[in-house]
Amino acid sequence: MAGYNLEAIEAAPLKDDMDIVIPTIRSLDFLEQWRPFLKHYHLIIVQDGDPSIKIQVPEGYDYELYNRNDINRILGPRANCISYKDGGCRCFGFMVSKKKYIYTIDDDCFVAKDPSGKEINVIAQHIKNLETPSTPHYFNTLYDPFRDGTDFVRGYPFSLREGVQTAISHGLWLNIPDYDAPTQLVKPRERNTRYVDAVMTIPKGVLYPMCGMNLAFNRELIGPAMYFGLMGEGQPISRYDDMWAGWAAKVVCDHLGFGAKTGLPYLWHSKASNPFVNLKKEHKGLHWQEDMVPFFQNLRLSKESDTAAKCYMELAKMTKEKLTEVDPYFEKLADAMVAWIEAWEELNPPVVDGNN
Amino acid sequence: MAGYNLEAIEAAPLKDDMDIVIPTIRSLDFLEQWRPFLKHYHLIIVQDGDPSIKIQVPEGYDYELYNRNDINRILGPRANCISYKDGGCRCFGFMVSKKKYIYTIDDDCFVAKDPSGKEINVIAQHIKNLETPSTPHYFNTLYDPFRDGTDFVRGYPFSLREGVQTAISHGLWLNIPDYDAPTQLVKPRERNTRYVDAVMTIPKGVLYPMCGMNLAFNRELIGPAMYFGLMGEGQPISRYDDMWAGWAAKVVCDHLGFGAKTGLPYLWHSKASNPFVNLKKEHKGLHWQEDMVPFFQNLRLSKESDTAAKCYMELAKMTKEKLTEVDPYFEKLADAMVAWIEAWEELNPPVVDGNN
Repeated sequence: MAGYNLEAIEAAPLKDDMDIVIPTIRSLDFLEQWRPFLKHYHLIIVQDGDPSIKIQVPEGYDYELYNRNDINRILGPRANCISYKDGGCRCFGFMVSKKKYIYTIDDDCFVAKDPSGKEINVIAQHIKNLETPSTPHYFNTLYDPFRDGTDFVRGYPFSLREGVQTAISHGLWLNIPDYDAPTQLVKPRERNTRYVDAVMTIPKGVLYPMCGMNLAFNRELIGPAMYFGLMGEGQPISRYDDMWAGWAAKVVCDHLGFGAKTGLPYLWHSKASNPFVNLKKEHKGLHWQEDMVPFFQNLRLSKESDTAAKCYMELAKMTKEKLTEVDPYFEKLADAMVAWIEAWEELNPPVVDGNN
Repeated sequence: MAGYNLEAIEAAPLKDDMDIVIPTIRSLDFLEQWRPFLKHYHLIIVQDGDPSIKIQVPEGYDYELYNRNDINRILGPRANCISYKDGGCRCFGFMVSKKKYIYTIDDDCFVAKDPSGKEINVIAQHIKNLETPSTPHYFNTLYDPFRDGTDFVRGYPFSLREGVQTAISHGLWLNIPDYDAPTQLVKPRERNTRYVDAVMTIPKGVLYPMCGMNLAFNRELIGPAMYFGLMGEGQPISRYDDMWAGWAAKVVCDHLGFGAKTGLPYLWHSKASNPFVNLKKEHKGLHWQEDMVPFFQNLRLSKESDTAAKCYMELAKMTKEKLTEVDPYFEKLADAMVAWIEAWEELNPPVVDGNN
């Protein structure tokens, strides 16, 4: 147990309220290092690629594992909405979970240390982020006002200090930064060594590039909007799965009055993926993002869309109307968005009063 | 010279392009500690209160000093627009400067150290912030992409990576945080000890509470909008001078396509002001900010307003139309805003092609 954070081993905050979702194509040895922080949580492993490969999970973990055959069996014809040979397949795990919170992590990510040398408990920080309010209507210059030792500064309207419910907690990465292929190629040796000790709300109306490597969210509030799109094999685009989910989920948060935070916790991202492979996967996205971002910046959801699922159905319609002119792919994506919501609602039937 | 940062003593970046503006009612002994960083810069000292008091300035500094008699003489009947017995009088210094950049600092602020123990060169950081672009249209999760060792992350549209000109650099404070009187009363012992190693753009359309303690800006781009209002003696409100300037300047930046950054550099704020005195000065502002913030959030400037001065004249008109119903004081403020622009233009006549 040398080097382990013993406090964390005992403290598994809200372990019955959070599932850990991991997409993978290989054995999950990386979980050995995470044991002190994750061992009390239930894992949902989404196996990508060839279903006949046997994924090894370190002993002692409580998990369920789904491969492509499982996804096809459970979703039937709607299984097409789940990406194949792309990390975006993780969203299947969001759909089958029954918990309030999801934490999703990539299998090339490890425990990072804070500047004092202490191992960072990512789960504890994400839960802190999710369980305290967000402040999307006005910027607080001392960052998260709900953190110990800080508050709202002079000039912060009192009517805004209650904040709103937090739906998304976006964590960051030390070591390999999350760059696109062109930036990887230009700066092959750049490493992120800066630990920025802050959490902040992304203001209402502002979009950001949400990365799926170290991400937590409130499934009850925003789950149906966390669809990672249709990417990978058979599709013209990859590596935009989390971006698509981030833009959509932020627009839905803004519309429904929920908040998204970014900043702490950091994890250690160990391996830069191959920039030439990435360039091939990304090249259409690098082009299309010039249209996708303005699309999300300018759309307005209707008052009738008062749940994440309804918002997402409206968004599917808008995607078909507005983005199909960019490329016919977006029509297929829009259909997959509808299939995703139908599948979500089948697996997560709405709670009817007096019937539950 | 023990403890001094010798590099900084030699390096006085852009010393011919920046004035340091200091409002004060006392001798400026605090400048002794700032000598390594400020000694090469020209100071504009705005003496508040009784003009017969003699302000001592440490030897070796190059400065001009204006007291109330000077302000009255230079501005004539328009001198009323400059606050009396309030730090807001500093904006007179912005008006008489002829430099591109202004740095303004309070006389209870000292040199802070970064986590490595090195004294922070506030000027060098502010200049870095002002001379690199801002990115107000989309949030970069690794913060300032123009800083060494970082860049735009995956999912950041390439068309937005050039950024826009930066007009404002808002620095922060270690030790005494900038709280309002109610928060001071509730948390008398709270100190800011967290060094957040980041600079970020405040996104377009988002307001923030701008504090005048540690503030730099580009006078050529935004100077006329940096009016610190009508506060102090004879007025119903104090301690909202910088807030007013911050809201107005941000709205003007957003309209004209300039950026505002917040974060580094930190200075050391030494003394908490008396919360009971502050409560008396602030109490109307604490109430009125509930109307002032939505006023600024919702206003739209016209296309014809294509300079900071024209924007500010339009803002004066809107202030009279919309805020006078909150309190008749805002009519007086709106008139002072007009007088401010008239005085600014008299002291800073527009450069006419072929005439300069």
